[in-house]
Amino acid sequence: MPCSRKFWVLKDTCRDEVTTDYFEEEEEDLEDLRKGEIMCRALFISVDPITRLHIAYSDPGQPILGRQVARVVESRNTDFPKGKLLVVAMGWSNYSIVDPTMTQEMGGVEVPLCETLPRQLENASLPKSSAMGLLGIPGLTAYLGLTELAKAEEGETIVITSAAGQMGHLVGQLARHMGLRVIGFTGCSDKASWIKTELMYDWAFNYKTQDVKQALNIAAPNGVDIFWDAVGGDLANTILPYMSYYGRVIMVGNLANYGNMDNPVSISMIDLAIHLKELTITGFNVYRYYHMWEDAREALVKLFKEEKIKPYEHVVEGFEFLPEVFVNQMNGKYQENYIQNIPSIFVVG
Amino acid sequence: MPCSRKFWVLKDTCRDEVTTDYFEEEEEDLEDLRKGEIMCRALFISVDPITRLHIAYSDPGQPILGRQVARVVESRNTDFPKGKLLVVAMGWSNYSIVDPTMTQEMGGVEVPLCETLPRQLENASLPKSSAMGLLGIPGLTAYLGLTELAKAEEGETIVITSAAGQMGHLVGQLARHMGLRVIGFTGCSDKASWIKTELMYDWAFNYKTQDVKQALNIAAPNGVDIFWDAVGGDLANTILPYMSYYGRVIMVGNLANYGNMDNPVSISMIDLAIHLKELTITGFNVYRYYHMWEDAREALVKLFKEEKIKPYEHVVEGFEFLPEVFVNQMNGKYQENYIQNIPSIFVVG
Repeated sequence: MPCSRKFWVLKDTCRDEVTTDYFEEEEEDLEDLRKGEIMCRALFISVDPITRLHIAYSDPGQPILGRQVARVVESRNTDFPKGKLLVVAMGWSNYSIVDPTMTQEMGGVEVPLCETLPRQLENASLPKSSAMGLLGIPGLTAYLGLTELAKAEEGETIVITSAAGQMGHLVGQLARHMGLRVIGFTGCSDKASWIKTELMYDWAFNYKTQDVKQALNIAAPNGVDIFWDAVGGDLANTILPYMSYYGRVIMVGNLANYGNMDNPVSISMIDLAIHLKELTITGFNVYRYYHMWEDAREALVKLFKEEKIKPYEHVVEGFEFLPEVFVNQMNGKYQENYIQNIPSIFVVG
Repeated sequence: MPCSRKFWVLKDTCRDEVTTDYFEEEEEDLEDLRKGEIMCRALFISVDPITRLHIAYSDPGQPILGRQVARVVESRNTDFPKGKLLVVAMGWSNYSIVDPTMTQEMGGVEVPLCETLPRQLENASLPKSSAMGLLGIPGLTAYLGLTELAKAEEGETIVITSAAGQMGHLVGQLARHMGLRVIGFTGCSDKASWIKTELMYDWAFNYKTQDVKQALNIAAPNGVDIFWDAVGGDLANTILPYMSYYGRVIMVGNLANYGNMDNPVSISMIDLAIHLKELTITGFNVYRYYHMWEDAREALVKLFKEEKIKPYEHVVEGFEFLPEVFVNQMNGKYQENYIQNIPSIFVVG
């Protein structure tokens, strides 16, 4: 057993451009387990855009939050025996000691800090890491956001920003399967051609180099029914006037402003578009549908087995690369050793 | 029978400050009725904030839109005999000839151009004009917006802008009856004291002279669950950060920008508040619940009979005053002869 653990902390609250300098690796001794506690070793740590938001509101010295697929390596809790695999909210740390019966509040729901791996993984040829991808927050958000919140219907048109991302690439595939016309925006031409040719989106554009209005005039001549927005800012503001009557905007992130928290983009009022077209804009965190996760996982794994949806993941080896991988994700960059166009990133702990 | 009719038209598209100069009275001969047609005489013409929006998008020479309570004065349609009272969408005109079987599309629903007066008026001591007030769009929007869209619950906190207005004064009373904590913002101190003392709002403020943030810190220490927004712009942007988790914003108007259509207020991105607090913002037109109007009217008239809600109306005599009354409504001004603090305005045709 290890006698110490490593974990990444925030050096300084980050409200503008993020660099690797904001992160610092620390080491501390591991104490003996108390009754009921377990020790986990991280197998995969998910690198998530939401971390950008956390570090804007965290104090210096705070550990970086996040999810892991972890293995119990020592246990004084019979419900969580040694060898068991879990999804745990233990952040960017290689080892952790935790009371696995603890809960945390997420979106008004008390959820366990440590969950067993989705049982749907058992008979599917999916990697364990997909507990944080297709069968985790990205997949659940995509599925429940489309079906429950947006109430997507065949024949409707959806626009997705961050369309090649961790969540976006699942949203687009699900929407296609549901018979929607799928339009993806991404910040890179290679990713745009990937989602068009591999994921079979109807349209894909690089919003950094292409004229968004022109793109929408061509790709959405009858308007946009659903806007899956992970970016916000100017891009969102350009897309909003193209919404159809009763259009739904699902706001899952705000990447445009995460790097500019104290001076968010100033836009002209969009109230009028919302008002006149009776749009509904909803900030969405999938915990509001926590009671439906099990059914959603069943549906997702069925779609995977029927080859209707294919999750993409990229695994980087090395706990020490976490800040670099995260900063690259934020900047939409690939590292040289990345397999191109693979959106979900996990760093082996 | 009259041989001519008078009606108001728009002199020029109005995208900035509205004045009476934008309106012009016209007169034209009334032709003989064709089979199936009726001639109506306006008894009450409703003066509505939404007209501000119409005239920003209408061409010069277009008649001013709006609703009337009208009496059939001549008829070649046995379903609409002489003497019958109707609510008709015939705008600012004293007489009109119309085929009463015609429909218009409102919010995706085909609705008749001419409707018989709500039958709930029969046994209630309400004036006929309340077919356009408590039992018309303002009352229906208030009732169905609170119950169906916002799903207001006892103990929640609601903020209402334009809180002493045609719709706002009904929203506030209904919300109080439903057990909500009611906070009203209005642009005039007299109206603020009226809604506080007469309508029994929990809190009332003049947003033009009082500090909105300070007001909300005092009146909504636990946050705002429902924000009934008729104003938009800076005021809305100041209120949004005070919303509670899962807060609902019902956007029924955008008065702040109607006078400034080509240069709407520029605000910093509010996406983050929406995203983090999982707010839902909905542009709302009550036609989406058209199938529920009858039940809503039953509920409203019951509340009126039980003295749980009291509609206020003001009637100005004189078709010639329409532009003046409208401009004053837009500027939140009383005319000298107004009975103070009476929000719904009808001009006798």
